[in-house]
Amino acid sequence: MGFGVVGRALARLLLEEGERLAKRRGFRPIVVGVADSLGAAYDEGGLDMLEVLGAKERYGTVSKSSSGVRGMTGLELLGTVYADVVVEVTPTNLGDGEPGLTHIREALKSGMSVVTSNKGPLALAMPALMELARHRGAVLRFSGTVGGGTPVLDYGRRLSAGDYIEGVEGILNGTTNYILTRMTEGLEFQEALREAQERGYAERDPSMDLEGLDSACKLVIMANYVLGLKATLRDVEVKGIGGVTREEVAEAYHRDYAVKLVASIREDKLKVEPREVPRRSPLCVWGVLNAVTFKCRRLGEQTVVGRGAGGVETALSIIRDLAEVKRNLSGSLGGWA
Amino acid sequence: MGFGVVGRALARLLLEEGERLAKRRGFRPIVVGVADSLGAAYDEGGLDMLEVLGAKERYGTVSKSSSGVRGMTGLELLGTVYADVVVEVTPTNLGDGEPGLTHIREALKSGMSVVTSNKGPLALAMPALMELARHRGAVLRFSGTVGGGTPVLDYGRRLSAGDYIEGVEGILNGTTNYILTRMTEGLEFQEALREAQERGYAERDPSMDLEGLDSACKLVIMANYVLGLKATLRDVEVKGIGGVTREEVAEAYHRDYAVKLVASIREDKLKVEPREVPRRSPLCVWGVLNAVTFKCRRLGEQTVVGRGAGGVETALSIIRDLAEVKRNLSGSLGGWA
Repeated sequence: MGFGVVGRALARLLLEEGERLAKRRGFRPIVVGVADSLGAAYDEGGLDMLEVLGAKERYGTVSKSSSGVRGMTGLELLGTVYADVVVEVTPTNLGDGEPGLTHIREALKSGMSVVTSNKGPLALAMPALMELARHRGAVLRFSGTVGGGTPVLDYGRRLSAGDYIEGVEGILNGTTNYILTRMTEGLEFQEALREAQERGYAERDPSMDLEGLDSACKLVIMANYVLGLKATLRDVEVKGIGGVTREEVAEAYHRDYAVKLVASIREDKLKVEPREVPRRSPLCVWGVLNAVTFKCRRLGEQTVVGRGAGGVETALSIIRDLAEVKRNLSGSLGGWA
Repeated sequence: MGFGVVGRALARLLLEEGERLAKRRGFRPIVVGVADSLGAAYDEGGLDMLEVLGAKERYGTVSKSSSGVRGMTGLELLGTVYADVVVEVTPTNLGDGEPGLTHIREALKSGMSVVTSNKGPLALAMPALMELARHRGAVLRFSGTVGGGTPVLDYGRRLSAGDYIEGVEGILNGTTNYILTRMTEGLEFQEALREAQERGYAERDPSMDLEGLDSACKLVIMANYVLGLKATLRDVEVKGIGGVTREEVAEAYHRDYAVKLVASIREDKLKVEPREVPRRSPLCVWGVLNAVTFKCRRLGEQTVVGRGAGGVETALSIIRDLAEVKRNLSGSLGGWA
C-alpha cells in the first residue's frame, strides 16, 4: 500500500539484497500486489518488480505496468489478492489517519500481518490496532516509525526484559535538530530553516516537524510499544520550536548546555518541548541525528543514536520487520514479537 | 559455573523477577547445580537458591549448603547433572582462559547450551567455540561480555540485517573512560586512578583495563559476532592509556576534542589505542559510560551508549540470553540466534 519514496526504496532493496536475505535468513518475500494513488498492480505468482518500478518511473503509476489495473484502490487490492503481510507506506495523515488506517484495519481483520512506517494510524489509534492484531493472531510491526533505520523500538523492548523502563527522553526529529544545531552556530531560525529545506532535511511544508507533531507521534508509539501505555496523540502536551531564539540557544551553549526539542515520558506523562540538555549528556546529539535515552531502574540510562528517517533507512527497517514477522508466523505466535 | 558477583546477582534477580519472567515470557528457569572454587551444590529437582545464597554468604562456598559437595569441581558437576543451559561466570583469565574455557567446551560437547559473561575463553578461542556450538546444535550466547547490560552485540547484529557494517569504533572500558574524564577535569593520571579505585570503578590490579586488554577482548567478540570475522586476542594491536598526560588531554579538550581509549575495526584490522574524538560526536561519552558506533553502509553511523559492566547489569544480560536460548531451543535452531 503506497509506492512513494519508502515503497520504491523497499522494492529496490529487495531486488538488490534478495539473494543475500534468502541465503542468510532463509527469507525470500514475493510481492503479489502494489497500490499507489492512481491504481494497482497484482499477480498472485509474484510481480516483476523491475517492470513495476519502471512503470512507476515512466508513467507515475504502477497501474501502467503489464499487471496493472487503473483506478483500483488499495482497499480493493486487499480484497483481491491474499498476502501474508501488508506493507503500509502511504503518506502520514494526522487528521483521520487515512488511507493508512483503513488499510491496516482491514488487513488485520482478514488475519494478514502488517508492517508499516506510517505514523498517522498508530498515533491516532495504536491501542485499538494492537488489540485487533492480538485478537486476530496477526503481527503488527512498525520499527520504521521511530528513528528511521535505527532500531529504537526494539532496543527499548529488549531493555525492558528483566528491567523496568521508568522514563524516556528523545530527540526524535532530525529536521528540528538540524535547525537548532545551525542556530547554535549563529544562524537565525528562518535562515536555518531555509538551509534545511535546500538540503532536503525539511519538507516544503515543515509544520509537522516544527510544531513538534512528528516527535509527538513517535513518542506515542514508544509509549505504547516500549512502556505498555495506551496512549494516542491527544495525550501529548506539544510545544514546537517556533519560539526559540538564536540568543537563547547561544546563551545555553555558553553554559555548556544545548537547546533541543525533547520528547519525554515521565510518570506516564507525554510531552514534547524545547528544553536545555547538558552538552555532555549522550542525548545531546547534533545535526540531523536522533537520540533516545531510556531510563531503566537497574541498567541506568541507555541511549541509542542514529540518523533519523530517510527512504533507504526506513526501507531497511521494513525488511527487518518482515523477517521478524516471518519468524513469528513460523512460530505461530500472534500479536507482538 | 562460578558464584561470584555476577553469579549471585543472577541468582538474586531470578528470585526477585521469577514470577514476572514466567508471566511475561513464559520462562521459568530452574537451577539444578552451582559450582564455586571450593565445591558445588546440586539437585536435579531444583536447588533452593535462597539457601544456597545463604550458605555462600555465611561460609564462603555453596558446598556448605544442604545439597553441597565439598571439593566437587565445576567440571565434575557438569558430568553429574544434566542442564539445558550452563551459565559460565567464573573469573576472566587471559592466560589460558581456564577454568571457563574447559567448562564451555565440555558443556557444548555434551550438547548443552552456554550463556557466559566470561571474556577470556571467547577472546582466546571464539572461532573454535562457535564452530563447536554449531556442530553440536547448541546455542552459545555472551551478551554480557560487551557493554555489560547494554545490548551492544545484538544491536550490531540487528543492524547488519539488510545492511553492511563496515567499521566499528567503541569506548568499551568504563574504568579508563572514567580516568580520562577526570584527567580532562584537571586530575593527574595517578590521582584519577586512585579515585576510580576508591569508587569501585577500578580493580585493585587495574592492569587489564589500563593496558587496553579488556577493551581488546570485547573488540574480538564484536569482530566475530557482528562482523563475522574469525579473530582472537592475538589479532589486536593494543596500546593502553599509560602514556597519556594531563596536558595532552587538556589541550585536546580546548580544541573541542577529547582523548578516549578507542577500540576500532577498520578493513578487518583490530586496534585499541588512545585517540582524539570530536566532542560533538556521539561516541564522545563521559565518566564510566561506554559507547559503540557501528558504521553502516546504508544506515550511516549508529551509536549505543550505556553504563558498562557491573554485577546486576551483567546478570540482566544473562537473563536476556537465557530467554533467547529458550526461544531458540523451542524453535530447534542450533548455533546462533
